[in-house]
Formats: sequence, C-alpha cells, structure tokens
Amino acid sequence: MSKLVAVIAGVGPGTGGAVARKFASAYPVVLLARNPDNYNDLVKDINGAGGKAIGISTDIADAGSVRAAFDKIGSEFGGDYGLAAAIFNASGRFVRKPFLELSEDEFNAGLDVSGKGAFLFAQATLPRLVSAAPHSKHPPSLVFTGATASVKANAQMASFATGKWALRALSQSLAKEFGPQGVHVSHAIIDGVIDIPRTKEWLKEAGPDAKISADGIADAYWNLHTQPRSTLTWEIDIRPFVEKW
Amino acid sequence: MSKLVAVIAGVGPGTGGAVARKFASAYPVVLLARNPDNYNDLVKDINGAGGKAIGISTDIADAGSVRAAFDKIGSEFGGDYGLAAAIFNASGRFVRKPFLELSEDEFNAGLDVSGKGAFLFAQATLPRLVSAAPHSKHPPSLVFTGATASVKANAQMASFATGKWALRALSQSLAKEFGPQGVHVSHAIIDGVIDIPRTKEWLKEAGPDAKISADGIADAYWNLHTQPRSTLTWEIDIRPFVEKW
Amino acid sequence: MSKLVAVIAGVGPGTGGAVARKFASAYPVVLLARNPDNYNDLVKDINGAGGKAIGISTDIADAGSVRAAFDKIGSEFGGDYGLAAAIFNASGRFVRKPFLELSEDEFNAGLDVSGKGAFLFAQATLPRLVSAAPHSKHPPSLVFTGATASVKANAQMASFATGKWALRALSQSLAKEFGPQGVHVSHAIIDGVIDIPRTKEWLKEAGPDAKISADGIADAYWNLHTQPRSTLTWEIDIRPFVEKW
Amino acid sequence: MSKLVAVIAGVGPGTGGAVARKFASAYPVVLLARNPDNYNDLVKDINGAGGKAIGISTDIADAGSVRAAFDKIGSEFGGDYGLAAAIFNASGRFVRKPFLELSEDEFNAGLDVSGKGAFLFAQATLPRLVSAAPHSKHPPSLVFTGATASVKANAQMASFATGKWALRALSQSLAKEFGPQGVHVSHAIIDGVIDIPRTKEWLKEAGPDAKISADGIADAYWNLHTQPRSTLTWEIDIRPFVEKW
Repeated sequence: MSKLVAVIAGVGPGTGGAVARKFASAYPVVLLARNPDNYNDLVKDINGAGGKAIGISTDIADAGSVRAAFDKIGSEFGGDYGLAAAIFNASGRFVRKPFLELSEDEFNAGLDVSGKGAFLFAQATLPRLVSAAPHSKHPPSLVFTGATASVKANAQMASFATGKWALRALSQSLAKEFGPQGVHVSHAIIDGVIDIPRTKEWLKEAGPDAKISADGIADAYWNLHTQPRSTLTWEIDIRPFVEKW
Repeated sequence: MSKLVAVIAGVGPGTGGAVARKFASAYPVVLLARNPDNYNDLVKDINGAGGKAIGISTDIADAGSVRAAFDKIGSEFGGDYGLAAAIFNASGRFVRKPFLELSEDEFNAGLDVSGKGAFLFAQATLPRLVSAAPHSKHPPSLVFTGATASVKANAQMASFATGKWALRALSQSLAKEFGPQGVHVSHAIIDGVIDIPRTKEWLKEAGPDAKISADGIADAYWNLHTQPRSTLTWEIDIRPFVEKW
Repeated sequence: MSKLVAVIAGVGPGTGGAVARKFASAYPVVLLARNPDNYNDLVKDINGAGGKAIGISTDIADAGSVRAAFDKIGSEFGGDYGLAAAIFNASGRFVRKPFLELSEDEFNAGLDVSGKGAFLFAQATLPRLVSAAPHSKHPPSLVFTGATASVKANAQMASFATGKWALRALSQSLAKEFGPQGVHVSHAIIDGVIDIPRTKEWLKEAGPDAKISADGIADAYWNLHTQPRSTLTWEIDIRPFVEKW
Repeated sequence: MSKLVAVIAGVGPGTGGAVARKFASAYPVVLLARNPDNYNDLVKDINGAGGKAIGISTDIADAGSVRAAFDKIGSEFGGDYGLAAAIFNASGRFVRKPFLELSEDEFNAGLDVSGKGAFLFAQATLPRLVSAAPHSKHPPSLVFTGATASVKANAQMASFATGKWALRALSQSLAKEFGPQGVHVSHAIIDGVIDIPRTKEWLKEAGPDAKISADGIADAYWNLHTQPRSTLTWEIDIRPFVEKW
C-alpha cells in the first residue's frame, strides 16, 4: 500500500477545517467542499506548514461528482492508496419553517446531503478503509457529524432532522457491518453552537467558552481515531458546559 | 364541512388493509397503493358491506401522482372535505445486502418512500386534518407505520433503516408542530412478522399467534385515533409475545 | 381458578382511582394505598354501583406490609384466585432540590417506591398473572406508571428520576421474561400534569384540556389490557396536545 | 487549595485499576474498594513508580463508611484538598436468575451500589470537584461506569439493570446541574467483556482483541477528563470490534 490518507467532506470554517488541521499532522489530507473558498486558505496553510493537503470541489450528493473526486484522489496518491480516516461533516441547509410552507426541494435538502450524500461518501471510502486496516496504526475511521437534531426532531425542523436521523441510522448500520472488518465507524452528536466567525456575536453574555470549540471537536475525533479495535466508541455527544440540553 | 374521510396510503394484505376495514366502520375510506390489485377486492368488500371506499393508484414518492390522487379525493368528496384520519403505511422495498453491493437506486428506495413519500403525504393531508379538528369527534389523526428498523439500524439494512429513522423523525417533528393545532400525530413501531398469506409458513413452530395480527394493529391505530386531545400518545411499539426484542 | 381479580397499587385522586373505576367494570378490584383516605370513597362508590372493591392499607416498599396485603387478598378471593391485571401506580415523593441539599432519606424516597416497591409488587403479582393466563380473556396485564422523568433526568431531580429509570428497566426486563409466559407487561410514560383537584389552578390559561385526563389514562391502560398476545405494546407515552415535550 | 487529587471507587483488576494507573500519572490517587486485596498491590506499584496512592477499605453503599473514607482523605491531603477527578466504577453483584427466584437482598444488590452508593459517592465528591474548578487545568471530572445493562434491561437481569439505569439517570441529572458549575459529569457504557485474568479463557476463538482493554477504557476516561469545558461529552459507549451490539 503506497500511502495512508485522510479525507474530509464538508470543510469550512468550523468542524471540518479543524478536523483537517488535526489529521494533517499525521496524514496527507483531502478536503472536499462544493465551494473552493471553503478550503483554499486551509490547503495553503497546511502545505505551507510542511503538511500535505489538496482540495477538490465536490457536490457530495451527486454520484458523478463524488466519483470524479475519488478518481482525482487516486491520481494524486496512486491507485493503491488507503484511507486511515474518512470524516463526513457535510450538512444540508438548515431550514426552519412551518412544515406546510416547506417546498419539496427545501425538504429534500436534508436527505440529499445526509442521506444520499453520506451513502455516496461511505461507498467511496469504505473499500479503502477496509483495505487499509492491516496497514494502519489505528483502526481506519469513518466518522459522521451529527447534531442535536440527530436525536430530537423539533417542530419546524422536518428537513434537517429527517436527514440527521437517517445519517445516524447509516452510521449505526455501518458500525455493525464494518466493525468486524476492522473499520471504526462512529457518530458525533454536536449539541450546541460552534465557535466560528459567523457566530461571533452569539451567546456572548454566556461567556467566552459558551460555544463549542471546533478544535475541541477535532481532538475528540482524533481520540476516536486512536482507539484500539478492542475498545471502540460508536457515539459521543458534545456540548458546552452551559448548554441546557 | 361536507364530509370527514379517512385516507390510507400503502394498502395491501397486511396492516393497510386491516386499518382500512377498521376505519371504514366510521368513515368513508380512500385507499392508496401503486398497484390496484392491492385494494380492488378490499374496495369491493367495504362497499358491499354498506361502507364507502374508493381506491386510487398512486406513487406516493411522486409529487405529481400524489397531487392527482388528492385532486381525485376532492372531486369525490367535495372541495371542503376534511380528514378524520390519514394513515401512512407505505414502505420502501426491504433490501438486505452487504453495503458495498447496494446500488444507488437500491439505497434510495428507503428514503424515497419513507422520506419523500411521507413528506408528500403529510403535506397533502395536514391542511385537511387541521381544518377538520373543530368538526371531528376525535382529534384528527396522522399515523405513521414504523418497524424494528425505526429504532435499530442493523448491519446490511442501511436502505430500510435510513428511511424508517427519517420517517420517525418526521413523525416526531409533526407531532410537536401540529399537536397544538389539534391534530394527533403518532408513530407505531411494528416489531415482528405480520400474519399475512405470504408469511403463512413462517414461525409455525412458535405457535398460531407468534405473528402480529394485522387486525390487532388496526385496533391499536383506532385506539390512538379515539384518544382525547388531553391524552395523546405519540409512539407505541407492537410485538408478539414470543418476540425476542 | 375461582376468580380473576385486578389489583392497583397507588390509588388516589388521579390515575390510580380512574384505573380502578375502569377495571372495576370487568373485575373485582383491590385498591392499595398507604392512607385509606385515598381509597375509602372509591371503594364505597364501586361497591355501591354494583361492582366489587376492597381497599387495603399497604406500604408498598415494605416486604411485610406487601405480604400481609396479598394474604388478605387470598382470604378474600380464595387461595386459587388469579390476577387479570396488576397496575403499579405508586410513586415516591417528588423531591426537587439542589443535589447537595438532598438528605439520604430524600434521595432514597424514589428508589424505595419505584425500585424496591415495584419489585415487591411484581413478585407478589406475577405468579398469579402467570397462572391466570390460560383462564383470562385478555393476556393478564402488569402495567407500570412512569413519567417524563422516566426518560429524562433533569437537574435537581436525582431522586425521582433514578427511581423512575429503575422502574422502566424493571418493566422492560419483566416484559421480556414474562411475555413468553403469556403475561403482558407494559410501561406508560405520563408526560404532563394530570387533571385532579390539586392541580385545578394549574395551566388554566392553556385551556380546559391542557391537563392529562386520568380517565384517558385509564382508557389507555384498558386498551393495553385488551391487546391479544400476538400484538402487545410494551410502552406508550401520554401527553396533552399543548405539551412542549 | 493545597492539592488536587483523584479518587476512584471500585478498584480491582479491570477498569478501576487501569483508571487508577492512568490518573496516577497526573494526580495523587485514592483507591476505594471493600476488599483491600483489590488495591494493595496497585498502591504499592504506583508508590514504587514515583506516584502517590493510598487505598481505603470502603463499603460504598454505607453512609458511615463513605464518610470515614473521605475523612481519611482529608487527613491525608489537608482540609482544603480539591478533586480533579472522581471515578465511580463500583458495581453490585451481577445476578442473573429468573425473577421469581430473586430474593429481596439479591434484587437490592444492584440498587444499593449503583443507586445509594453512587449517591453517597457523588455527594462526597461534588463539593470538592466544584471547589477545584477554578484551580484545575481540566474541568474536574465525575465519571460513572455503566454497562450494556444501562440501556437494555434483559430478561432475568432485573437487579443489575435497575441499578445501572438508575446510575445513568443520576449521571444525566448531575451533568445538567453541575456542568454550569464547571464540573464535567460523564457516563460510559461498557458493552462487552473486559480483558482481565478472570476472563482469560472467554471469547478466545474470537481472537486476542475480542475483549475490551481496561487500559483502553482508562485512555477514554482520560480523554473525557481533558476535554475543555466548551466541549464536553456526557456519554460514550465502548465495545470491541467483534461485539454483536
């Protein structure tokens, strides 16, 4: 096997970017996002700091786009590259509106990314995760990012919640099927506001650490990644100390 | 309001048919299924026994087909008909195979019916359920049929389970949004084999009532329907006494 | 078998009393409560209306008191009486206070009733439920009353929640063990305020049916009781339409 | 504050001992077990390796014994010591037998340790965890060890499961109350067989890492301990890759 690589789908200013930086200290990383603005600076930073990163513009819910992305990864790292980690951090648009005002497209937004997109990503990465198992220091990891809406479906949240519940189901089914094949599948329930530039003004009165640290999430994902296969966690939840649950 | 009607999507030899017969004793019933063979005899039986039933061939995952079906209901019962009950009993194909052998279409089968189909059905019925609330003896009911796979995502069950988890999320979100509007939204986890001709030879050694009675499910749905709005159940599970859980 | 009887532990102005009245229309009922004031009028009413009821002052968390109560039931109905239904509706004191201010006795209040008390009640009733199975029209029923706190453990609710979670565990374990023996064990999550004299002034602004109807709960328990053994529900939740979940 | 200490209740050859060794690299550790044989060698090892450990024979379900233990900790570390971590790893006897054969004492075994014992431990440690918050590098941690039986109550497991469900409720209630006070409360579902001398011959055919590593659990607890208060996990599950769930 020529190389072990980590691929992160859904890179941006929050979790995806922090995870990319964290995993870049151990592996070459591939960053997928629809909009290259979401990874360009990060790719530059990682490469500039002595790591190795490439970004690929990808529509994760489109089979052709996903196929093209993984073809490109193959050209870059050789046909026999393996995956040490695959992180699915993409999310459909967060739509909150009265159910009867949802258009069909708005409703499908959640399931397109968290259902179909996660399926495409899992099918593209699992063969390389399985094949990497005998060569990887840590069990190869497939991590899915969930949210409060993965376990609670609130009023007016039908689009986001149906996608996130479907994603959690996918994660659980894959954990059971691929655990015995040496792949560590896990799911993280991110329950709170993540501290990124866009949320700078939110929750200010609650104090400087009332928002979830993206680097803290990345550390948690790294800790999942380094668990031995005798001792695997399927699911963690993450929230700031002030969260009301 | 001219009339209170019950509509059942996903009618066949099991739950859907039994629910149709049960609710036909109180309301005219509309039976939706893709294949008219699934409702023709039932329609005849109900009408022959002094009830009122119509069947409409419908692809529940297709917006145009669902719209056409509800147009037809309007022509039949008058533009101001209300819905006393809407039962979503449709299910995608039950596909069980290794994840890496699933085609995109096979995976989507679950989400198409249980995600998109349930969305279309809920959007088509909720306005008529809400408007019926002041006129209906019992809180108008929207019931979704789930399965073991609604709460457990087993290996090789990614298609079915993602659909069923999404359906449960939809049901919970709608229960919270439409409860205060007087509509009773509920979800039933059918956890076992239903006793229908196709399963005649299954579980024989476990005895004559080791399979779930479709009429028993219909009774349970009727009991949900007749709860007063002060005392609503969102979720029930149903299994035979021999089920291993 | 001389007689099928129903026994209800935890009788008072709410659920217990309503359940007693409901089941008294089918069976002689035995009402257990520590304080006879909680059942005296009800016993009189039921007997006066042509039913059959006896009340027995019982400390459900005390083995000797429970034994004495069931000895008395035996003297009343004959040594070979069977139980068609046993309803455990007792609850420890609802204590809400900062955890560090809880005395050991206050903390234990929840587990004494919902843990030890439920154990004693289940051990006293299950042999009579099992033996009644072949003779009872409906599968003999053992129903446990839970609360919101059965599935959510809120801050400052350690005593009540630990008891209620333990009770739910007991119910699930017994459902699995005694279902195959023909006994229907179930658990009800009562999620809201019950409409009784003490809560008359509560939630008034939310309207006349913003509180759960005790009679509605009793109907739900009766519906559980009449399920055939092919079609058993382990758990239901019950809340008013205005509940915020 | 003179000193930050870690205290572990329920020390033996598995999780408790591994956690003690792990935390001993950062803090003086206090090891509680009823039988000193369970900590004597470990205390010697840790002290011999340059760490600091004391063992105290304690019956965790007895208020007087717990009080005496914490008095002793105070004498040892000074009246103003703080707790960086408190790990509750005690468990009642694992009793598996038909429900009707359980004695009252056997049933209570689970609730005595996991209910009352956990209450006593939490009340004894929380004031020292809260007071340590401003002085501790990591948010002071209170970790509870659960099991498969914390989320599933199997047949014939009423004693163990009621205790473990109660413990999980306590953990959730405390997480909500003490998170805002800067204490990190968490719960671990250990779902599988732990690799200790007593289980040496178990699961051998499944391979050398088919049992959970106690050191792996200790690493997971340490990872929980080092989470920043912006990014706290309440619950993790842990199982070997071959576990059937």
